[in-house]
Amino acid sequence: MKEVMAFIRIKKINKTKKALLNVGFPSMTCRNILGRGKKKIDFKLTISPLEAAKEIPEIYEASSEEHRLVPKRLITLIVNDDEVEKVVEAIMEVNSTGNPGDGKIFIIPISETYRIRTGETGEEAL
Amino acid sequence: MKEVMAFIRIKKINKTKKALLNVGFPSMTCRNILGRGKKKIDFKLTISPLEAAKEIPEIYEASSEEHRLVPKRLITLIVNDDEVEKVVEAIMEVNSTGNPGDGKIFIIPISETYRIRTGETGEEAL
Amino acid sequence: MKEVMAFIRIKKINKTKKALLNVGFPSMTCRNILGRGKKKIDFKLTISPLEAAKEIPEIYEASSEEHRLVPKRLITLIVNDDEVEKVVEAIMEVNSTGNPGDGKIFIIPISETYRIRTGETGEEAL
Repeated sequence: MKEVMAFIRIKKINKTKKALLNVGFPSMTCRNILGRGKKKIDFKLTISPLEAAKEIPEIYEASSEEHRLVPKRLITLIVNDDEVEKVVEAIMEVNSTGNPGDGKIFIIPISETYRIRTGETGEEAL
Repeated sequence: MKEVMAFIRIKKINKTKKALLNVGFPSMTCRNILGRGKKKIDFKLTISPLEAAKEIPEIYEASSEEHRLVPKRLITLIVNDDEVEKVVEAIMEVNSTGNPGDGKIFIIPISETYRIRTGETGEEAL
Repeated sequence: MKEVMAFIRIKKINKTKKALLNVGFPSMTCRNILGRGKKKIDFKLTISPLEAAKEIPEIYEASSEEHRLVPKRLITLIVNDDEVEKVVEAIMEVNSTGNPGDGKIFIIPISETYRIRTGETGEEAL
C-alpha cells in the first residue's frame, strides 16, 4: 500500500475530489497547509498578503520578505500499489494549469492499515 | 521505528489520549483534518453542515453534494517496531463504536529520528 | 528521496525558514499542530492555557489535567537522500535551545515524486 500526498491549489479541491470519485477513490483527507516551492513569489500577481492573511492568519508569522509561504491544500489517499498510477493521473489532469504553483505529489510507503471499527487489516481495510 | 497515524472521531480525542498515556505513550501530535471514507454521508444522522461549518469553515469549500468531507482528528505517534501492536490496540479499544466513521490507522516506516535539543538519534530520541 | 518532518516551537518558524533558505532549501510546507513529548508540562512556566486557547481553540478540547497538548509547528521538506544531513543540521542549529520542548525531526522514505505542472518525476521533480 501507498500514501498519495498531493499538495494542490486551494481552488482545485472540489475538482480534485470529483475527479478522484469518478475513478473510484472516494476516501481521502484534506488539510490546510502553508507551503512554497523554489521560485520567489510575486504577490502582486497571485494573492495579496492581506487577502491571504484573512484566510489563514498564520501567514504573517510564516512570512519573510521574499520567500513567503502561501496557503495550499494537502490531499492524502491510501491506495493499493497498483492504483497509484491511476490516482496520480487523475490528480494531475485537473491540477495541471501549466503555471508554477500547480503543486506536487509524493508517494510514501505504508507498512500496514487497520479499520478501527472491525479490526480488519491490509487490503480489506482500505 | 514506525509512525502510527490514526484518523479518529473528534469526540474521541481525550479518551484516546488517556488510553495511550495509560499504556505508556504520552508523546503524540494532534491535527485537525477533513476526511471521508467510502460511504455516502447522511448529514441528518451525523452532523449538520451548519454545525460543521462553525467548527471548520473550509468544510463548505470542500463539500460537494453527496461526498462531503467531515472534520476528523489525526493523531500521530512515533514508536519502536515492537510497540506498534500495543499502540494500535489501545487506539482501537476506545475508538471502535461499531458504526461507520470510526476511522483508520496507518503505519508508516520511519528511517531516522533526531531529538533537536541533544542531537540524539534512534531509540534514544524517542 | 526522503521527507524531513520537523516539529518545532512556534516562535522558531521564521529563523528556521531563513536557515533552510541559506543552505539552499527554499521549498517547504508548514502546518499548525498540537503536540507533546514525554514530560509533564508546567504551564506557569511556558504558556498560559488562556493564551494558548486564543491561538488554537482546540487546545481546550485536547487538554487533560496533566498532559496537555501545546501548539507547535510542523515543517516538512522533501530532499534527496544525500541532502538529509545538511537539512537536519540547519534545523537543529536554530532550534536547539537546550530546553525541553525544542522538538524532534523524523525522516520518512519517499517512494516517488511528481511535479503536477510538467509530469516530471524523481530528482527532476524536486
